[in-house]
Amino acid sequence: MSDGTLEPTPEHRFSFGLWTVGHVGNDPFGEPVREPLDPAEIVRRLGDLGAYGVSFHDDDLVPHGASAQEREAILKRFRSALDETGMVVSMATTNLFKHPVFKDGAFTANDPEVRRYAIAKTLRAIDLGAELGAPTYVFWGGREGVEAYAAKDPRAALDRFRESLDFLAGYVRDRGYPMRFALEPKPNEPRGDTFLPTVGHALAFIASLEHGDMVGLNPEVAHETMAGLSFFHGVAQTIWSGKLFHIDLNAQKIGRYDQDLRFGSEDLKEAFFLVKLLEESGYDGPRHFDARPYRVERGQGVWDFAAGCMRTYLLLAQRARQYAQDGEIQEALAEAGAPDLARPTVGPYTPDAAEELKRAAFDPEALGRRGYRNERLDQLVVELLLGARG
Amino acid sequence: MSDGTLEPTPEHRFSFGLWTVGHVGNDPFGEPVREPLDPAEIVRRLGDLGAYGVSFHDDDLVPHGASAQEREAILKRFRSALDETGMVVSMATTNLFKHPVFKDGAFTANDPEVRRYAIAKTLRAIDLGAELGAPTYVFWGGREGVEAYAAKDPRAALDRFRESLDFLAGYVRDRGYPMRFALEPKPNEPRGDTFLPTVGHALAFIASLEHGDMVGLNPEVAHETMAGLSFFHGVAQTIWSGKLFHIDLNAQKIGRYDQDLRFGSEDLKEAFFLVKLLEESGYDGPRHFDARPYRVERGQGVWDFAAGCMRTYLLLAQRARQYAQDGEIQEALAEAGAPDLARPTVGPYTPDAAEELKRAAFDPEALGRRGYRNERLDQLVVELLLGARG
Amino acid sequence: MSDGTLEPTPEHRFSFGLWTVGHVGNDPFGEPVREPLDPAEIVRRLGDLGAYGVSFHDDDLVPHGASAQEREAILKRFRSALDETGMVVSMATTNLFKHPVFKDGAFTANDPEVRRYAIAKTLRAIDLGAELGAPTYVFWGGREGVEAYAAKDPRAALDRFRESLDFLAGYVRDRGYPMRFALEPKPNEPRGDTFLPTVGHALAFIASLEHGDMVGLNPEVAHETMAGLSFFHGVAQTIWSGKLFHIDLNAQKIGRYDQDLRFGSEDLKEAFFLVKLLEESGYDGPRHFDARPYRVERGQGVWDFAAGCMRTYLLLAQRARQYAQDGEIQEALAEAGAPDLARPTVGPYTPDAAEELKRAAFDPEALGRRGYRNERLDQLVVELLLGARG
Amino acid sequence: MSDGTLEPTPEHRFSFGLWTVGHVGNDPFGEPVREPLDPAEIVRRLGDLGAYGVSFHDDDLVPHGASAQEREAILKRFRSALDETGMVVSMATTNLFKHPVFKDGAFTANDPEVRRYAIAKTLRAIDLGAELGAPTYVFWGGREGVEAYAAKDPRAALDRFRESLDFLAGYVRDRGYPMRFALEPKPNEPRGDTFLPTVGHALAFIASLEHGDMVGLNPEVAHETMAGLSFFHGVAQTIWSGKLFHIDLNAQKIGRYDQDLRFGSEDLKEAFFLVKLLEESGYDGPRHFDARPYRVERGQGVWDFAAGCMRTYLLLAQRARQYAQDGEIQEALAEAGAPDLARPTVGPYTPDAAEELKRAAFDPEALGRRGYRNERLDQLVVELLLGARG
Repeated sequence: MSDGTLEPTPEHRFSFGLWTVGHVGNDPFGEPVREPLDPAEIVRRLGDLGAYGVSFHDDDLVPHGASAQEREAILKRFRSALDETGMVVSMATTNLFKHPVFKDGAFTANDPEVRRYAIAKTLRAIDLGAELGAPTYVFWGGREGVEAYAAKDPRAALDRFRESLDFLAGYVRDRGYPMRFALEPKPNEPRGDTFLPTVGHALAFIASLEHGDMVGLNPEVAHETMAGLSFFHGVAQTIWSGKLFHIDLNAQKIGRYDQDLRFGSEDLKEAFFLVKLLEESGYDGPRHFDARPYRVERGQGVWDFAAGCMRTYLLLAQRARQYAQDGEIQEALAEAGAPDLARPTVGPYTPDAAEELKRAAFDPEALGRRGYRNERLDQLVVELLLGARG
Repeated sequence: MSDGTLEPTPEHRFSFGLWTVGHVGNDPFGEPVREPLDPAEIVRRLGDLGAYGVSFHDDDLVPHGASAQEREAILKRFRSALDETGMVVSMATTNLFKHPVFKDGAFTANDPEVRRYAIAKTLRAIDLGAELGAPTYVFWGGREGVEAYAAKDPRAALDRFRESLDFLAGYVRDRGYPMRFALEPKPNEPRGDTFLPTVGHALAFIASLEHGDMVGLNPEVAHETMAGLSFFHGVAQTIWSGKLFHIDLNAQKIGRYDQDLRFGSEDLKEAFFLVKLLEESGYDGPRHFDARPYRVERGQGVWDFAAGCMRTYLLLAQRARQYAQDGEIQEALAEAGAPDLARPTVGPYTPDAAEELKRAAFDPEALGRRGYRNERLDQLVVELLLGARG
Repeated sequence: MSDGTLEPTPEHRFSFGLWTVGHVGNDPFGEPVREPLDPAEIVRRLGDLGAYGVSFHDDDLVPHGASAQEREAILKRFRSALDETGMVVSMATTNLFKHPVFKDGAFTANDPEVRRYAIAKTLRAIDLGAELGAPTYVFWGGREGVEAYAAKDPRAALDRFRESLDFLAGYVRDRGYPMRFALEPKPNEPRGDTFLPTVGHALAFIASLEHGDMVGLNPEVAHETMAGLSFFHGVAQTIWSGKLFHIDLNAQKIGRYDQDLRFGSEDLKEAFFLVKLLEESGYDGPRHFDARPYRVERGQGVWDFAAGCMRTYLLLAQRARQYAQDGEIQEALAEAGAPDLARPTVGPYTPDAAEELKRAAFDPEALGRRGYRNERLDQLVVELLLGARG
Repeated sequence: MSDGTLEPTPEHRFSFGLWTVGHVGNDPFGEPVREPLDPAEIVRRLGDLGAYGVSFHDDDLVPHGASAQEREAILKRFRSALDETGMVVSMATTNLFKHPVFKDGAFTANDPEVRRYAIAKTLRAIDLGAELGAPTYVFWGGREGVEAYAAKDPRAALDRFRESLDFLAGYVRDRGYPMRFALEPKPNEPRGDTFLPTVGHALAFIASLEHGDMVGLNPEVAHETMAGLSFFHGVAQTIWSGKLFHIDLNAQKIGRYDQDLRFGSEDLKEAFFLVKLLEESGYDGPRHFDARPYRVERGQGVWDFAAGCMRTYLLLAQRARQYAQDGEIQEALAEAGAPDLARPTVGPYTPDAAEELKRAAFDPEALGRRGYRNERLDQLVVELLLGARG
């Protein structure tokens, strides 16, 4: 997808949430530090930087409690900005976490009336997303969890989560919207423990859905990394399962509050293998940034942040192409036996194959003496990243 | 399952790996501190303590390289101990991590010959397990991972993992062994990152298998906890998915090396909800302890450790029964709305139901003013645990 | 200090920050869910529950921007409540984290004018604390850190931190306020990395101060636990160093956002050893709760939370007394050799002592065969906690 | 110290522990995979690669239980290798963790005889270090900790730790050895919790020692990183305190078992700021690598590993020089106000200065509107690291 240039263009399919560059900088201990930005202005500024699309929560675009007239005015201004810039709405989602009504959960709130409200709000937000052409609808269950284990039977919570998604998928199919769902897992924060904490748990859950074929994942760097899990491996398993429908790019340190840092600003090696995987796997969806400028930024600093996300992605994509053409790296891969992992081991089961294997003579001592020179291979990767390989 | 007594009996279905009480106490920085124990002695000692069964890796019972005669003598002695004590073999598994041959992986080793050897070794170990009546066969892919990301395409690794399990399941079915498989996920250690790092990832993977119906999970407290994930929620999702085939009980602090501590020795609240879930869910498999005595133990200390695992389980089961009968706790559950989570929210999708929801008048401000008194509920749990509720 | 009762009384010296029960429930993803409480009401409600004191940030009591008249009215109302209830102001501190002016730090802000403002604000807040009789003044450097390493030389930051504390200590001495300082370390959040991240770093820093004798620590459960460090050991080293001037009690899971949970609601074993240490060490300062009610609480739930903090403390203090009188536990301590750690090993250095040691015959193999039965000891602690030891 | 070349030379002061390249690859789940290397061979191979020195535990060089004759033969061979290659012994230390005798601790073992043995062993090992010219003697208290909190009063443990170090420092002074001590903190592993878990705790402890002036730190990347603490900041505070006596370089992911990975193979940004700090701070001690080759390595892979450690250090040192000369980076530093942090804020306390500050008019709203453009600054660092800045 990336073509060697370091200037972002719409072909690179970079998108940003309105809430990212638009984040006002509040945190658990601090007040806002930036003024809200008009969605139309965000579209224009991101368009100038070479982005392809924007995404939003319903309330990012049309504030909670806006009148029908206000709604129309907002949408008109927003559409104009899209038309002028050629930007698209690459994804839409529902804010089911900000208002006090969702403090105990949305689809898994203990109060059935809250659950019904959450579904109703999502139905309307799906309509808004469809109206604006969003091909993907994301579900982040930020409040679907607990601090006090006793308060929710987690099996009942999964029942309710499934019921809600089945209902909403039914709606999308019924309306004929060309839209797929993408679940976004997260282990904790703002709840003590969240249901569907990792890409694995969410993938497994999808298999239980009535319309599981239209449901995939939206993995986020920060969320898997909080739990110390390999995001590269998590995305690879998602792709392997045919379920990478969208992706949230940012950066994060392990074992910390949700940092949502500029893409590539932590763990360059992990970011490199992620970009390489996305570029080589045929994934053609948005490269979506779900990050926030540092709280010390104002004005230009916000756009520095956005430009940095894209630029680092392009730099890493460039390194990925270089990797593929680097003879020494390819030789080290061969010495590590990496290509041999693609070869079948035994093929499908047959009684004869089993007998043959059981009778075969192996020399484990000799096999154990092979050296794989992974240190050399990894060192070459580090030097490639550091720009020290020509 | 537990009946009020604090004396373990076979009805409680407590089992231990031979490698647990038999662990010689070596660690990355230290030499063994205890002598190996004979499997038959372990069976007798555990039987005396009230256990129900033992489990083993092939090499725990029959050391790598033993002659056919030695194998027979060992098995005879082991069977005698089982017969005398009434203990059963509750699970068997393969050691695919100790020998240098597996340093780069077993089913996902880059060298196809190593992969073939791993499958062959497992075939023989399955025979051994079947011969001794093990109803469950566990797969822990301890070496299935990497330190250097470049060395393995994780998608190819999943292909090989699947191929191996399909082959082995084919074998078990072909032989007609009354045996199911249970995958045991772990995020890292001894590899930098392991494939199938959590119960979620493993559950999702099972859905891709040819004989997925005979494959479930063996979740382990320490492994999910290392990543800071809720083990209680993980086991609940496993049960919800119909896949709790076995369980490994121990204790662990978050974000640390694999500690394999005595069950209940960390996070009593999590341990309580786990025991409550196992006791109330209808799970009737072994309560299997995969833990190790502290390295400062010798002799009696080892059996203190084993007795402690069982006793804490029984104490927590007792507390779970008390919880169900505690009027104030039940009232607090009602005030938190916990029982209402079991009620359907909207039922299956119909166009009318969707329209009705979209037209319904909600009062989110009023709904948001409800207080759930989870603090009181959780405090009652803490006081129950502390034995301060009568 | 605790005397067996489970009813809190002022003699137990329980105190709460105004910002704890007064927290309105906003978080990074959610709006406030509770209305602000008047400080005087907080004093009365806490007094009713048996608390001894309250603490505050300057802005908790007198909002930023209040006029002199407003200030007087607030203070009058607050003093009346104190007088009526007999509650005291047990600690005061400065809010140097909420306003945008502090987004880049306070004492370590890069802008010298911000640093000067931070010191000026603290001078006024110290006057307020002194006026209300606060014997301890706490410094939590919540914004003293960075996300971008390049932005601050950490050595210069330590210079500025020291300069500020030296200046402020000079002021307190000059005014003759009977007040000591207590530093509160935290590893991260809201900044990516905070200077003085642990009790260790802060203790070491104090040794560099001009008036280090009047500066000690205010360790917080959640802060050390976020980094997976032993809070029990951290407080013990603080006491050992003569620097436990104040303490912040709450609960937290390792490797997560700052949870500030109800005291005792996580890791009961750690909480037990902490209470035991405080009770037995002669520490006579406040047992100060720096926690927040869950976001699902309203009204009574807030006071449930406060009562729960105190009650669990008293229950654990009761268990500590029981521990001291439990013959089997004392026997297990002896078998573990615990009392022998208090005996000197060699005494002060002399050449003769060294020669004698070097010539002494040791039998490490025999010494290595000793078993310490720590499993039994720890199991007894677990059973004590579970209320299962009579 | 580094001069632009990427070829290691003794002037770069790179050193390695004998136990690093000599590690046989055992881990908690696996047997050794490599044969032991003769110390003399290690010296020669490292000398060939451009290293400056080696370090050792007493038992690395002279195995536990060697006869006097064996000792002489070993030392002779080792000295010859040093003489031939010009390599030096840059540090020595004691193995107080491997043998079962130390399973309950060494200086803080509960058994006084074990403590005496630990001191005696260290006295002899100090003699060996002195004989071979080691200027620094390292203390890593790997076993000084607990799993069961009850087993050791942490204050008594600190007493014993202090007593031991005072005795040993007395010995070194008495003998007139030109040797300093360096404490190496670690939060956990192989013990559940270790005393002196971070650089902060160890720095604070040193202030309590009789001969604290001759005691400093040996911080290790992996150890601070396990706890998620900033190693860059930790080393900076150590330097600020005048206590950086030695350093252990390697790599590690947060919240995991002790990985001891090749230097620079994780978190390139942290590694960069560390190298920059070491190079610019005037630290002139060894750049000591305490890491291990991956377990998949044999033969050449071991030396790939050693060469990679040094090469990445030199590459990062090169980037640090480039940083200092990069005009745009320097401009961004100025815009972030970084140089202003070096300016005093208020100077020493005077009553007039305090009054002036309290009367000064500040405009916090205006100060709060400043943007620091740290995103741009950090992005420039990332691009510098990626070799994308000319």
